[in-house]
Amino acid sequence: MKALVYHGPGARSWDTVDDPTILDPTDAIVRIDTSTICGTDLHILKGDVPETVPGTVLGHEAVGTVQEVGAGVTTVVPGDRVLLSCVSSCGRCRYCKEGRYGQCLGGGGWIFGHLIDGLQAEYARVPFADNSVYKVPERLSDEQVLFLADILPTSFEVGVLNGMVTPGDVVAIVGAGPIGLAAILTARLYTPGRIVAIDLADSRLASAQRFGADTMINNSDGDPVAQVMELTDGLGADVAFEAVGVPQTFELATELIRPGGRVANIGVHGQSATLHLETLWTRDVTITTGLVDTYSIPQLMKLIASGRLDPSLFATHRFPLGETMDAYDTFSDAASSGALKVVLQGGNASSSVVEAEQIATVA
Amino acid sequence: MKALVYHGPGARSWDTVDDPTILDPTDAIVRIDTSTICGTDLHILKGDVPETVPGTVLGHEAVGTVQEVGAGVTTVVPGDRVLLSCVSSCGRCRYCKEGRYGQCLGGGGWIFGHLIDGLQAEYARVPFADNSVYKVPERLSDEQVLFLADILPTSFEVGVLNGMVTPGDVVAIVGAGPIGLAAILTARLYTPGRIVAIDLADSRLASAQRFGADTMINNSDGDPVAQVMELTDGLGADVAFEAVGVPQTFELATELIRPGGRVANIGVHGQSATLHLETLWTRDVTITTGLVDTYSIPQLMKLIASGRLDPSLFATHRFPLGETMDAYDTFSDAASSGALKVVLQGGNASSSVVEAEQIATVA
Amino acid sequence: MKALVYHGPGARSWDTVDDPTILDPTDAIVRIDTSTICGTDLHILKGDVPETVPGTVLGHEAVGTVQEVGAGVTTVVPGDRVLLSCVSSCGRCRYCKEGRYGQCLGGGGWIFGHLIDGLQAEYARVPFADNSVYKVPERLSDEQVLFLADILPTSFEVGVLNGMVTPGDVVAIVGAGPIGLAAILTARLYTPGRIVAIDLADSRLASAQRFGADTMINNSDGDPVAQVMELTDGLGADVAFEAVGVPQTFELATELIRPGGRVANIGVHGQSATLHLETLWTRDVTITTGLVDTYSIPQLMKLIASGRLDPSLFATHRFPLGETMDAYDTFSDAASSGALKVVLQGGNASSSVVEAEQIATVA
Amino acid sequence: MKALVYHGPGARSWDTVDDPTILDPTDAIVRIDTSTICGTDLHILKGDVPETVPGTVLGHEAVGTVQEVGAGVTTVVPGDRVLLSCVSSCGRCRYCKEGRYGQCLGGGGWIFGHLIDGLQAEYARVPFADNSVYKVPERLSDEQVLFLADILPTSFEVGVLNGMVTPGDVVAIVGAGPIGLAAILTARLYTPGRIVAIDLADSRLASAQRFGADTMINNSDGDPVAQVMELTDGLGADVAFEAVGVPQTFELATELIRPGGRVANIGVHGQSATLHLETLWTRDVTITTGLVDTYSIPQLMKLIASGRLDPSLFATHRFPLGETMDAYDTFSDAASSGALKVVLQGGNASSSVVEAEQIATVA
Repeated sequence: MKALVYHGPGARSWDTVDDPTILDPTDAIVRIDTSTICGTDLHILKGDVPETVPGTVLGHEAVGTVQEVGAGVTTVVPGDRVLLSCVSSCGRCRYCKEGRYGQCLGGGGWIFGHLIDGLQAEYARVPFADNSVYKVPERLSDEQVLFLADILPTSFEVGVLNGMVTPGDVVAIVGAGPIGLAAILTARLYTPGRIVAIDLADSRLASAQRFGADTMINNSDGDPVAQVMELTDGLGADVAFEAVGVPQTFELATELIRPGGRVANIGVHGQSATLHLETLWTRDVTITTGLVDTYSIPQLMKLIASGRLDPSLFATHRFPLGETMDAYDTFSDAASSGALKVVLQGGNASSSVVEAEQIATVA
Repeated sequence: MKALVYHGPGARSWDTVDDPTILDPTDAIVRIDTSTICGTDLHILKGDVPETVPGTVLGHEAVGTVQEVGAGVTTVVPGDRVLLSCVSSCGRCRYCKEGRYGQCLGGGGWIFGHLIDGLQAEYARVPFADNSVYKVPERLSDEQVLFLADILPTSFEVGVLNGMVTPGDVVAIVGAGPIGLAAILTARLYTPGRIVAIDLADSRLASAQRFGADTMINNSDGDPVAQVMELTDGLGADVAFEAVGVPQTFELATELIRPGGRVANIGVHGQSATLHLETLWTRDVTITTGLVDTYSIPQLMKLIASGRLDPSLFATHRFPLGETMDAYDTFSDAASSGALKVVLQGGNASSSVVEAEQIATVA
Repeated sequence: MKALVYHGPGARSWDTVDDPTILDPTDAIVRIDTSTICGTDLHILKGDVPETVPGTVLGHEAVGTVQEVGAGVTTVVPGDRVLLSCVSSCGRCRYCKEGRYGQCLGGGGWIFGHLIDGLQAEYARVPFADNSVYKVPERLSDEQVLFLADILPTSFEVGVLNGMVTPGDVVAIVGAGPIGLAAILTARLYTPGRIVAIDLADSRLASAQRFGADTMINNSDGDPVAQVMELTDGLGADVAFEAVGVPQTFELATELIRPGGRVANIGVHGQSATLHLETLWTRDVTITTGLVDTYSIPQLMKLIASGRLDPSLFATHRFPLGETMDAYDTFSDAASSGALKVVLQGGNASSSVVEAEQIATVA
Repeated sequence: MKALVYHGPGARSWDTVDDPTILDPTDAIVRIDTSTICGTDLHILKGDVPETVPGTVLGHEAVGTVQEVGAGVTTVVPGDRVLLSCVSSCGRCRYCKEGRYGQCLGGGGWIFGHLIDGLQAEYARVPFADNSVYKVPERLSDEQVLFLADILPTSFEVGVLNGMVTPGDVVAIVGAGPIGLAAILTARLYTPGRIVAIDLADSRLASAQRFGADTMINNSDGDPVAQVMELTDGLGADVAFEAVGVPQTFELATELIRPGGRVANIGVHGQSATLHLETLWTRDVTITTGLVDTYSIPQLMKLIASGRLDPSLFATHRFPLGETMDAYDTFSDAASSGALKVVLQGGNASSSVVEAEQIATVA
């Protein structure tokens, strides 16, 4: 089969590799119908993720069709259309039993395109299939559910739920890239009173507005703390999300919140930050970090099915799966391409004309 | 009347000052029967709390008897024996309505011996009396309830409840001074599986053991992280309390916990700490800070009344109120005196022989 | 002044009565600008509420302007425009400190138009003013906030929050009168996946649809349990609200829910119901009851101010305050008048043309 | 092998039956080392559980040693000593993923000695072994963990956790049979202020006192509601557990609680009860029902291992497994035998002399 293979820092190619086969009785083999690229894939290509060895097929987000299942798989059968979660769950360890699949001690967690071959490929071996894939209702297209593989549950679980967004809250989101936008979209499920997006780029703030932010602050030319204080009678935001991954934005998030407020870190960090305990110790703050578990996929899928959540705005570009190399170029150059998420379509991808039109309006 | 007056950094004296009078209809005047000294009083004396102006009567913990009430006070009458909370509550602002009295926007919060005259005195003016004092059941002595004024609710609310201690948890407590000991005592209300006390001083670790710690680690000569990992199958503690107030101990607390664990900061900090987001971002941690609200006083008082919670171990020394200057000397020199809390007894203090004997056993 | 006075079962009149005066230092006198009538007022008139004595001014929902305050009132001053909650809070008892004002032990709770004179009058004495009135932002009209006095927090607190509505839930609402409609409106703050309204009257179901219900079931000619099961893969609704107040609807609510589901009773009951423990004991159900506390008024007011919650659909009819007798006739005859809530406008009521037009569209 | 076989209402015998074999790849075969009898087994023998067909081996509580595992089992191997939960979990359905194993949709739930052959036998087939058995630490005896199979998690999950017992609470337990006693024992993990046991039999109340109840009320000759009100300033208990299973005791539980209190039903009910909504609707009550899930087994096992929870008081009688028929006689006649739980010991049961002595003291 063909797949996007990592060959060490800076090196990727669309190669012919061996077809995957069942290795464990809990495995399934899935044909990839629709896939996508994540910022984390770019991190791997930069060499930031040393545990990913050259030769690994990248990708951890896909919708596909089950081809074959191991002897121990009981809940899916060949022919089932399924969403593949970026996080695998053994279903048996203490963390999986608590719904904390991202911390799986039994061989799961984030393994696709990281520790084992991933999902930017024609086929994939899917470990722990019973606990790691989700059947897709027939009336939903691949694209409607694709972003449930990672970005939507990441922002919802690690941001919105950890941050305990409550109706009426002022929610400040530091960083309006795809993760920040997904935080805006899923925060709205709890009807905040005001969503404030903060970013350095006007283009990203324009996206934030399209996704539902109420107030956009460009912090290259303003004082976001002062502006948030002005909006909140001098108290601060109820919740702030860090959605960038650098110390400055984390520190900003801790300054934006009111006494009793919450900071939910969603960003991926490579450095430590300064925690201003000399002021924060009296302010009753809660700070959370987290890996996505994707336990919320069934809930979010119901919301998409009922029309309450529409992730179609993310799909700014589409490529045939065979043009994954080009898709990487477009996604890597988001500043000029405006790419949020690029959709990789295998020969059997399902999608609808209506959605394509929506995308046209947005792009 | 006589009172302990702050005269600027390093300067305190037992002075004759004006008797307090009712200033607002929500005030009460209370005769102080029993009082005590807090580590925060020592901070003020060091000059660390600049908003406390010279001339202020110190102290924010006491049991007393109501002498007079303002026109708007409806729930206490002269003669009532009451516990005075270190935190006053206006009862009307958004934070007071949420039980977050420490963040009161209506003139309360920590004001005694800080922004107004305090409770190391023969009498005190008590603002917002209806919402800031608690009637003491007749059968409880002053000493039994005295530590409800500050130290017990501080460790319980900011440590145990913020840290969500759950039966069976491994709880690591960094710092075994009075606040750490109160955390041990109140954590036991939730039956942790193991309480680990970490400190640099063997004498404090011996106190920790008396208060109920199961494992004592002196981190001047050991590796507390390695020891906690060994006790927890390599995962880490479920909860860690920071009960010192310096960056190193905070950072240690964040290293001790397992994925999904909680760090509750109780210490008073004067400097920022380093937050190792480069490792913590994936570990599903929750970090909390907080000022005490004392909303838990009624709950803790019930537990003392029912014999489930016994704070008498704290009272290592007693002085007549008139010898408050000596009491400060003893309390300031805890390293050699072994003082945990010193009890200041006015002429009408209630206490019992039984308790005195218990103290003898401990001291 | 003029007021609507209860004269015993079946008897009410628009009388001249004494102007109210300050009785306690915590009182305020408020001029009523806008008021309304509640189903509970009709219950009193039927004689169902024996503790309400003849001679009592009825009404417990209003917006008004402070005229005078007692010596102990610190947070409002004459001239302030305020919402009067149907529930008064002493702010000092254990229940008020927990936010459970409806259970106030200090003289509050539901007293207006019940145990003391109420708010269908030109003026009213408002006990515990600091804890029982809420300032109204200038840009909000009386009508926009009027329903915060009772119906909105009732359905939100006792229904939506007690029932723990969660994004994606299937919520079944048994009874589509004003309380059921308010439950639909406020449940939407948590983005349920589907709202199912069940009622005997098609006209009420049509209202339910206008308020946001997705599925309407007339249970005079259908089997609502079977229909809900069909919508939920045979499991049942996640949450059901009882919003009628008779045994049959309560029992229906308990049949509609899935294992692990919640039944939140909002209805006012005069008789006991049968609880089918022989089936429910295995089904992990949670059943709640509750009086409104109105602790959610500030939260809901923020949501109205930010345009996220629009209660204007309730105001189907308006009358000058002087025509309160006619307003009662209209409200009592909702079946033919279609009245949801009737607005009583004093000479200083604020409202806007825009809203009037919205009403026209709905009525 | 030998096993206790149900032969229809009233009929049981100790028979030779076929040895169990692996049927599904997720099965294990376990040798039973220690087992016990449950009140539910007696219900089956009365014919109250019609879905249990004649020929079924009874029993759903045991400790044993794994003999053989299916191809899909990954977390236990032959030789492992394991606790067998009364509830099996497929680990894959929505309820199992939420920890609600009692509601398993994938073939689990309560199946042992109910829908499939049970654990009063020399060997058993254990479905879904990875998710349904728990390894036992070497230093714990079979008897120390045996009651984790059912009675302890039942009372803890369905009683203590559903009832949200909080430090200082007054907890009323209606019924002091084994389930009520387990509720006393596990409620103490949350340090209630007072535990009130209510029963008709003084002998059971004496047991309640041994397990830690503070107040014993015999409701054959007293008014338990009046007595609880007297203990609680007229408000009522914070939490009440129904631990009998008849309408009267359920109704009593609902009368005992204060406004804002919780009733947790633990009893097994065959009839409906009357729910006095005409009084309860205003009292902010929460009523829960539930099947045990046994998600708390790991937590409770840690508490036993750390010496915080000691279930040894339950083991009043011991029999060799071969004398299970006699053990049934003793257990069925608890009124005269005083049996709480009878321990059935296979040839490889582990137990300790210390425990035997403790039992002697109690019996």
